[in-house]
Amino acid sequence: LRRELIEQTTRLVDRRVPVLVGITDTSLAESIRLAGTAADAGCDAVVVAPTYYFPLQQRDLVTYVRQMIAELPLPLVLYNMPALTSASFAPESVAELLHEEAIVALKDSSGDLDYFRAVREVTRIRPDFTLLVGPEHLLAETLALGGDGGVTGGANIWPEPFVELYNAAFAREEETVARCSQCIARLGEVYRVGEFSIPAIIAHTKTAASLRGICSDPPAPPIAPSTPEEREQINRILATLNLLKPAQAKCTNVQ
Amino acid sequence: LRRELIEQTTRLVDRRVPVLVGITDTSLAESIRLAGTAADAGCDAVVVAPTYYFPLQQRDLVTYVRQMIAELPLPLVLYNMPALTSASFAPESVAELLHEEAIVALKDSSGDLDYFRAVREVTRIRPDFTLLVGPEHLLAETLALGGDGGVTGGANIWPEPFVELYNAAFAREEETVARCSQCIARLGEVYRVGEFSIPAIIAHTKTAASLRGICSDPPAPPIAPSTPEEREQINRILATLNLLKPAQAKCTNVQ
Repeated sequence: LRRELIEQTTRLVDRRVPVLVGITDTSLAESIRLAGTAADAGCDAVVVAPTYYFPLQQRDLVTYVRQMIAELPLPLVLYNMPALTSASFAPESVAELLHEEAIVALKDSSGDLDYFRAVREVTRIRPDFTLLVGPEHLLAETLALGGDGGVTGGANIWPEPFVELYNAAFAREEETVARCSQCIARLGEVYRVGEFSIPAIIAHTKTAASLRGICSDPPAPPIAPSTPEEREQINRILATLNLLKPAQAKCTNVQ
Repeated sequence: LRRELIEQTTRLVDRRVPVLVGITDTSLAESIRLAGTAADAGCDAVVVAPTYYFPLQQRDLVTYVRQMIAELPLPLVLYNMPALTSASFAPESVAELLHEEAIVALKDSSGDLDYFRAVREVTRIRPDFTLLVGPEHLLAETLALGGDGGVTGGANIWPEPFVELYNAAFAREEETVARCSQCIARLGEVYRVGEFSIPAIIAHTKTAASLRGICSDPPAPPIAPSTPEEREQINRILATLNLLKPAQAKCTNVQ
């Protein structure tokens, strides 16, 4: 099943951008098997979060990642997602793991700017190392802290402000950064429709993308789809942002 | 990989006892695929815990289990493990799900006797329904509350006191129950060797079983094995319990 999805993705992407595959699992052996499938399908890297079933301590987490690297056919991206997993990659553990060249990046979804700053500090010894942020409302702040970019869900709905913000940040165009941040904040209203939860963010992201004609609504179960009322609210938000007419999807006239 | 392990297990068990396969995953589709493998290999039932990555609310959890049942080739056992998953099966949700005949049992690892009592209460309308306890130090108490048995890790190391306690509880032989409970409590010292954690319980269970000649030491990564010092302490506990000489492994002479 996973093999089919990975192969379909690489076929569709057709090497235009890198394809990364999440291999987090409760067992090391399953993660390694999945990485092999990703490599066979022509992916560029694999992504692993700390285990989400067994709570690992830092020293066991470091051992686990080292055991994984020894068997991996592809570069590894660390995914720090403490809200959904049993542990965080402590900055000290990241520093230890940096000696492994196979580790090329870290995506931080903690939402904790102190953590982001600490990881940026310890990774300075590896200029090739990429540090990305998850929560998109922190994209501008983390770029200012030396971040290299983001893996931002909202870019699936409305890529323009994300791309513009990224370019403006490196060009030090502060007004553009501020305008794009405001667009991203407005888009964030989509996630807060209905009762707030991580599954709701996922469901509403798909609904919004669907309303823009990008994909179909339903998320993969067990994530429940947005209700019809929520869909209507999301539609209203997108209308306000002029996102229902593709030709006008620029990041300009947002109040 | 999982297919090979499941097939090896059913081959070794050879229908002497039921084989249950855990199918908990982050995605419904993967769980169903794994259940198909379990059915092909001749297993008797599958076991599912609430998702451990996405935090589901009770109504979504009930929907998720119903979606699963519609596709399952085998009976389903619910596994309540709030310490490691994103949710508990609330007694109200269990009551709702009981209308599905495919759900045949619940294993409760919460350690919460009020929860156990509440679930026993709502399941009384289904006399065929089996309610099992996880934490083995609660086996006697939960049998007294109307429980049907336990899925007890320690029985892999030392089955005798568990079997004797179970039989004595139904025969209302209180002294035997008390004596066996004491044996189980003493065995519990194994889990508290070193720094206490759920991975340590798993590692030490394997080490103890290995010291008794039942299997090899190392747990499946990412669980770290017991250290040599911990192994030595476990060995001493087993020696005190006369568990290193198989012929004497009765539940009698424990002080």
